[in-house]
Amino acid sequence: MPKIKADAMRALTRDVFHAAGLPRDAAEQVAKLMVLSNVRGHDSHGVRQIPRYLQRIRDKDILTDVKIVVEKETPTTAILNAGNTFGHLGAARAMELAIAKARQMKIAAVVVHALNHIGRVGGYPEMAAAEGLIGLCFVSSHSGEKSQTAFGGIDNRMGTNPISAGFPFPGANPVLLDFASSVVAANKIRQALDRKKPAGPGWIIDRAGNPVDDPQMFIDGKALLLPVGGNQGHKGYGLAVMNEILSGILSGSGTNATVSGGKFDNVVFMIAIDPLAFVTRAYYDREVKAFIEYLRASKVRPGDPPVQVPGDYETHVQEIVEAQGIEIEQPVWDSIVKAAQSVGVAVPQPIPAR
Amino acid sequence: MPKIKADAMRALTRDVFHAAGLPRDAAEQVAKLMVLSNVRGHDSHGVRQIPRYLQRIRDKDILTDVKIVVEKETPTTAILNAGNTFGHLGAARAMELAIAKARQMKIAAVVVHALNHIGRVGGYPEMAAAEGLIGLCFVSSHSGEKSQTAFGGIDNRMGTNPISAGFPFPGANPVLLDFASSVVAANKIRQALDRKKPAGPGWIIDRAGNPVDDPQMFIDGKALLLPVGGNQGHKGYGLAVMNEILSGILSGSGTNATVSGGKFDNVVFMIAIDPLAFVTRAYYDREVKAFIEYLRASKVRPGDPPVQVPGDYETHVQEIVEAQGIEIEQPVWDSIVKAAQSVGVAVPQPIPAR
Repeated sequence: MPKIKADAMRALTRDVFHAAGLPRDAAEQVAKLMVLSNVRGHDSHGVRQIPRYLQRIRDKDILTDVKIVVEKETPTTAILNAGNTFGHLGAARAMELAIAKARQMKIAAVVVHALNHIGRVGGYPEMAAAEGLIGLCFVSSHSGEKSQTAFGGIDNRMGTNPISAGFPFPGANPVLLDFASSVVAANKIRQALDRKKPAGPGWIIDRAGNPVDDPQMFIDGKALLLPVGGNQGHKGYGLAVMNEILSGILSGSGTNATVSGGKFDNVVFMIAIDPLAFVTRAYYDREVKAFIEYLRASKVRPGDPPVQVPGDYETHVQEIVEAQGIEIEQPVWDSIVKAAQSVGVAVPQPIPAR
Repeated sequence: MPKIKADAMRALTRDVFHAAGLPRDAAEQVAKLMVLSNVRGHDSHGVRQIPRYLQRIRDKDILTDVKIVVEKETPTTAILNAGNTFGHLGAARAMELAIAKARQMKIAAVVVHALNHIGRVGGYPEMAAAEGLIGLCFVSSHSGEKSQTAFGGIDNRMGTNPISAGFPFPGANPVLLDFASSVVAANKIRQALDRKKPAGPGWIIDRAGNPVDDPQMFIDGKALLLPVGGNQGHKGYGLAVMNEILSGILSGSGTNATVSGGKFDNVVFMIAIDPLAFVTRAYYDREVKAFIEYLRASKVRPGDPPVQVPGDYETHVQEIVEAQGIEIEQPVWDSIVKAAQSVGVAVPQPIPAR
């Protein structure tokens, strides 16, 4: 598989979207967040999306004219309208505003709508954590991607409605939760297809409610994701419902019950919390380090790998990618090359195989 | 099995704890919350706990001298110290304060520590929802009940660390999430034992990491709960970690890594949010009703029951209990009778069987 240096991939991504009409600084921010998805181990949400986003720009689903406005505001809350530009830009702006408000008021909530796909959700709580704050994101996707059933149901009711939380960790990447309320994220199934692998057991059902494992059926809308939890799937379903109310209703953009039309639309409710409203930085740092070490010290079965903590996977992949570049499946790389050429952007050479 | 009217059960519970030294108004509040657990379908967290709590009073783990103090406060945040009285009293006070602050400031976070068992977590977000606000609770339990493994681990690291969220619903009970981050709550296993049933598949492992189903092994500390999610158990584990940081560290009382000793201690981080900071009440009501109706309208397999929404189970049981009384297993009822007699409180007659 081709490997590309992260810096080169960032420049390529920026240049493609800039060539497609996005202002250069906005293109830079989108590129940074997209490539960070690959760097932090979520290829499904990274540069493989370049051709898809470019098509959305051409379809006028993603607008390159960046107009993000505050529709309503208090010292601790805000509603942002991202004007249908890149979801990454709207979500980042919302988290920046939540961070600024939480610095003043200790806790703040910002909701943002009229977004496209925001990519890897974990990127936004990471912004809060980098500033010493705790960040929480509750996401839903409106229409166009109702890929998840209700618990006990067999038709599509909601998106994969992910949740993410980031906690500052002294001297290292944050403790980071980032997961879909469905068994897996939809893009994990697209990735399985690219890698010619089946969908995992318990991931999807067909429209009669039978378990299936062909990822193509999901792509074709003939299979649906289940909420995480198996026979305790009311838990994943509960998280999906929570995310949909917080983001869809509090943003004033509605839920999948009331929004129609095929356009994909993420909606995000974010909370930023200043831990210093509660404890000192020294105490927080000492306690979070002790807790994480304690989890890592878990006993495991003979031969099993050590226990990980939320965010370890991301840091592990980051070390590999920083040393070796981003590995991209050949068909995905071919589609990125084709997309870049379609807007006249030169493509970097993959790193020669050793 | 004996059946007791909810009113009679509330009076009995109040009288027992009042006789054991708790002031009458505090005993009334504890009784109300405990019986509400039974009324809303969570017998595991209800009156079956009377003998256990009474023993804790005798052991001076639960103090009947109610001194709940604000240790630190801003307009949007507070830390409460519940002085080791009943967890129900501390958690209720914390949510009341979060509600009052959110009314003023739109969003507020209150953390409470030096608590005992708070009972059914869902009771606290319900308080916010009854006032038209959204309530979120993130709970961890310190020492004395480290019944859950880390994902991939085989020893006890955390409690069942539940999460709960309540959303106002016009003219009816709130939309309510209330679940452990482990596959099930610990009390569900105690209940299985009372009902002479095995623990469910995938609930517990022995200390060598093998799946087991004997609830007695869990009671004896020879088996541990797994995080919810099966092979996606990093999701339940992630929620458990989030709850432990938010409640344990932000309360200044530490996590299971740093708190030692056998005393059971719940810690709770609560957020209250005023939806009117974002949208109008009319809009919120209309959208939440449409969303819930839409979920209920899910297609199901022929012969399957209709899809439920979070909180339906609680409302369903409430209707049955209000008509028929609270059904209590004979050994549990016997233990309650014995506890009541030990403090000189008369016991109501069960409802005669029809």
